[in-house]
Amino acid sequence: MHIGIIGLGRMGANMRTRMRAGGIEVTGYDRNPDLTDVASVAELIQALPAPRIVWIMVPAGEVTDSVVGELSGLLAAGDLVIEGGNSRFTDDFRHAALLEKTGVYYIDAGVSGGIWGLKNGYGLMVGGAADQVERAMPVFDALRPEGAREEGFVHAGAVGAGHYAKMVHNGIEYALMQAYAEGYELLEKRDDLMTDVPAVFTAWQRGTVVRSWMLELLVSALKEDPDLSDIEGYVEDSGEGRWTIEEAIANGVPVPTISASIFARFVSRQDDSPAMKAVAALRHQFGGHAVKKAD
Amino acid sequence: MHIGIIGLGRMGANMRTRMRAGGIEVTGYDRNPDLTDVASVAELIQALPAPRIVWIMVPAGEVTDSVVGELSGLLAAGDLVIEGGNSRFTDDFRHAALLEKTGVYYIDAGVSGGIWGLKNGYGLMVGGAADQVERAMPVFDALRPEGAREEGFVHAGAVGAGHYAKMVHNGIEYALMQAYAEGYELLEKRDDLMTDVPAVFTAWQRGTVVRSWMLELLVSALKEDPDLSDIEGYVEDSGEGRWTIEEAIANGVPVPTISASIFARFVSRQDDSPAMKAVAALRHQFGGHAVKKAD
Amino acid sequence: MHIGIIGLGRMGANMRTRMRAGGIEVTGYDRNPDLTDVASVAELIQALPAPRIVWIMVPAGEVTDSVVGELSGLLAAGDLVIEGGNSRFTDDFRHAALLEKTGVYYIDAGVSGGIWGLKNGYGLMVGGAADQVERAMPVFDALRPEGAREEGFVHAGAVGAGHYAKMVHNGIEYALMQAYAEGYELLEKRDDLMTDVPAVFTAWQRGTVVRSWMLELLVSALKEDPDLSDIEGYVEDSGEGRWTIEEAIANGVPVPTISASIFARFVSRQDDSPAMKAVAALRHQFGGHAVKKAD
Amino acid sequence: MHIGIIGLGRMGANMRTRMRAGGIEVTGYDRNPDLTDVASVAELIQALPAPRIVWIMVPAGEVTDSVVGELSGLLAAGDLVIEGGNSRFTDDFRHAALLEKTGVYYIDAGVSGGIWGLKNGYGLMVGGAADQVERAMPVFDALRPEGAREEGFVHAGAVGAGHYAKMVHNGIEYALMQAYAEGYELLEKRDDLMTDVPAVFTAWQRGTVVRSWMLELLVSALKEDPDLSDIEGYVEDSGEGRWTIEEAIANGVPVPTISASIFARFVSRQDDSPAMKAVAALRHQFGGHAVKKAD
Repeated sequence: MHIGIIGLGRMGANMRTRMRAGGIEVTGYDRNPDLTDVASVAELIQALPAPRIVWIMVPAGEVTDSVVGELSGLLAAGDLVIEGGNSRFTDDFRHAALLEKTGVYYIDAGVSGGIWGLKNGYGLMVGGAADQVERAMPVFDALRPEGAREEGFVHAGAVGAGHYAKMVHNGIEYALMQAYAEGYELLEKRDDLMTDVPAVFTAWQRGTVVRSWMLELLVSALKEDPDLSDIEGYVEDSGEGRWTIEEAIANGVPVPTISASIFARFVSRQDDSPAMKAVAALRHQFGGHAVKKAD
Repeated sequence: MHIGIIGLGRMGANMRTRMRAGGIEVTGYDRNPDLTDVASVAELIQALPAPRIVWIMVPAGEVTDSVVGELSGLLAAGDLVIEGGNSRFTDDFRHAALLEKTGVYYIDAGVSGGIWGLKNGYGLMVGGAADQVERAMPVFDALRPEGAREEGFVHAGAVGAGHYAKMVHNGIEYALMQAYAEGYELLEKRDDLMTDVPAVFTAWQRGTVVRSWMLELLVSALKEDPDLSDIEGYVEDSGEGRWTIEEAIANGVPVPTISASIFARFVSRQDDSPAMKAVAALRHQFGGHAVKKAD
Repeated sequence: MHIGIIGLGRMGANMRTRMRAGGIEVTGYDRNPDLTDVASVAELIQALPAPRIVWIMVPAGEVTDSVVGELSGLLAAGDLVIEGGNSRFTDDFRHAALLEKTGVYYIDAGVSGGIWGLKNGYGLMVGGAADQVERAMPVFDALRPEGAREEGFVHAGAVGAGHYAKMVHNGIEYALMQAYAEGYELLEKRDDLMTDVPAVFTAWQRGTVVRSWMLELLVSALKEDPDLSDIEGYVEDSGEGRWTIEEAIANGVPVPTISASIFARFVSRQDDSPAMKAVAALRHQFGGHAVKKAD
Repeated sequence: MHIGIIGLGRMGANMRTRMRAGGIEVTGYDRNPDLTDVASVAELIQALPAPRIVWIMVPAGEVTDSVVGELSGLLAAGDLVIEGGNSRFTDDFRHAALLEKTGVYYIDAGVSGGIWGLKNGYGLMVGGAADQVERAMPVFDALRPEGAREEGFVHAGAVGAGHYAKMVHNGIEYALMQAYAEGYELLEKRDDLMTDVPAVFTAWQRGTVVRSWMLELLVSALKEDPDLSDIEGYVEDSGEGRWTIEEAIANGVPVPTISASIFARFVSRQDDSPAMKAVAALRHQFGGHAVKKAD
């Protein structure tokens, strides 16, 4: 099998490596001439045997839209596009509809695993028609972790289902991280009682109810920096977490821990909180409580 | 009626003023010789006509315990103690039991109104036996706001009920403040669209669903400092909010907004968040995401 | 002044009444022939003196879009549309742009006050050009509560600012309601201690920090049904609350109490919670804890 | 080594089995004559070689207090008590102080692993003096999972540190469960898009960021009952979760996800929510919104 991949950033390049190691022939295109195998998307298309398979791995939103648009003018009926970026699942509906006009098939693929995917394999959640998913299975098998296919890969449903599942995955991920983080602070706060906080996390790796890969990562982080003194409590967030809240709202699903996790990140990025200024001002108004004057 | 008051700090002194304005004769004691009317608690007791009424208005916890203990040795059967500080309602059970040994009656009084109470009257929530509450009614009538008694005063139940009601009052208060504060931040954030945030709050004072005394205070604060630039988003919390959460936990009552309000205050006082350091460290571990290095 | 109003449901009809009481001549149109003054929107337009002012008061979303669309074909340059429904502020941008093509002016008006607005006046938040707002001021003055204009009316900014302010108002409203509700449950739960929960709320109406119009409404509700036994804990939510969360997410504003209030409503409408089924299943899996079997 | 164990319920019995498999001689006592090896605690003490080691594994609170009290009268200087139940860490201070009077040593041990501990080993977190922890190490080594000691066992600090770490562990556990549960509901809600929700969880077991033991348990649960139709969304909670919130409050640590998890359990156990009745009543009051009448 010979496929094309568009986007050779960290994720795309690692995935190409893993595909190749799995016996897939891969031609890659990237806007960056230092990274690309071919000079243009058009050249990429020409290099692939028909019917073609093209994997898109570029930033979600406008860039992905633009690539799908370009492909819609270049691909032919029977070709297949797999969109593996961090797109919102609602984008998939547009992308699939556009490509369908010229008979091009579409699969959306949510990809988990981050920088560890190259070594461990990527958790894959895909949406699309069953026959197309079957057609691309050699690629999925190359990317996914060793072991039973169903433990690292799922055909979750129709177009959009893959990115929806990935979105929910990331929402859960946010809350898991926050859960461990709250535990960390509770332990760290009582350093009068707890002599070695990293050792506690280390010990939770076997036998406990909270053992997880995330916990192992926290153990690694604490091994490098036992009191996290080198790092600031400043945390970005990406689209999936926000979309999870929006979908929860749209579907009437209560998500108190996922939303709390996002809000904690928002707060972490503020130099000062307008809301808490307002609360301080109110306390001063009714109780005469002292306020801290800004510098 | 002639009563004693122990504790002439801001609250106690203002309440004495209001009692006197209401026709109650008041003798006050404070440890601070500049504030006190008499030299000692013993002298205070001697100055009062039997059966006596003594209002305690000192810091909750050890200080109140100590005053109740001292009074238990000085007062006689038939005397009445009214404990008006910010005590936890469970303290009232101990205090009442101690005084009951010598036949001294006990009322707990939750007092709301802050620095505005002197002018507007104090909202009062009291617990204790009906006949004792009736006995002290002239004092309560002097302290409470003008208007119908039941709109500014409640005999909420047995001993402890007054402070329990006050605790819940303060829990609600925390959440109300946070609600307006979140709204403030939402308005302030869109200064591209909203030309005058203080004017919005000002306009909410009549006709809207969110009008309240708290809103009026926020309007005052924004009049003094329209973008709250002089104030830091640093907010203390006092016992009642914390006790509210503890009672909620003890009674299986979900209090998501009250707890969120407390946690927002905790965060407001942190230079950096250990929890968010942990989240940042985790993101770096699995995704290779950049972290902010601490200075 | 003679204006037209489209939409004579409960809100629209009440507002017409209040406008007329304020000396504004009003011609109303409603799809319901029993309610309307004229047979069609076209007839309404013809009935108004040019340059015209038309107030739209129909359901947000498709119905409002449709009415604005119809008006764009009927109105002439210099006419003014005031959109007073519960629209999302982002809809205003589209509406204003459409009408601008034919020189028709646009103001968005957030209206608060519910069924009490007829009697008390409506809190008004408007967005649009200053000269158009000034032009419509007699209408706003008729609708808003008695008293200083700036305490019941605000020109919040450009088009969209009125509905944005109203959206935030409703987000705050949700959290205020939840705050009192949590307090209610905390009081109600301790009926061993609190002998009269409605009396506590009644007493909070004067002198306390938590006094508000919302509190007065809760007092009314508890007067009618002291333990709320006639009512189910089932609560709908409308667009504004959800949009508030979405805007908070879009702008990186933490809104823990507003979101908690929405989620509590979601839960209130569930017969059973899929999430809590999952938690019960998990507890059973790792701890052998008993689960409740569904019927 | 020959030790005694008091309490042979599910946990105690399993632990005895695992100790014995690890080469520890164990004599057990239980109040239930069908379970016990000896007739009384006194007989248990006599059966053990001095200096003795006694492991307590009975319900936390009064029962544990009572057993510690009884042991304080029976044990001799140099003996060692290991308290392995789900006690609050503050109880350990009392227990250790009581036993210290007669020269008896004390270790608190937090034990994780539930019904799986027998097979997988128990995650252990202990507090106490280093030499006593070393003395009991053969017991801990028998109980803990295979593999490196530090990955399933930690000497977390002084007396109380073990139970504190276990408390935090359980707080985290609550939030992890809630996180997956929210994800489950988000997936389940969109059954128009997701054709096989259990398959999604199954696929998350390898390669993803959210893989964990908890996830594996959810996969097991969904294998048995794919839509959880046999189970009610009714969830108990135990002491540790509540204590975690209380300690967070006491130490000023924000724990939004852990508290949200507890509150979700509280709600899950309510037939109807007093708070949401109040919200429904309020909506009716100001907006005339329909309420659901209770039957």
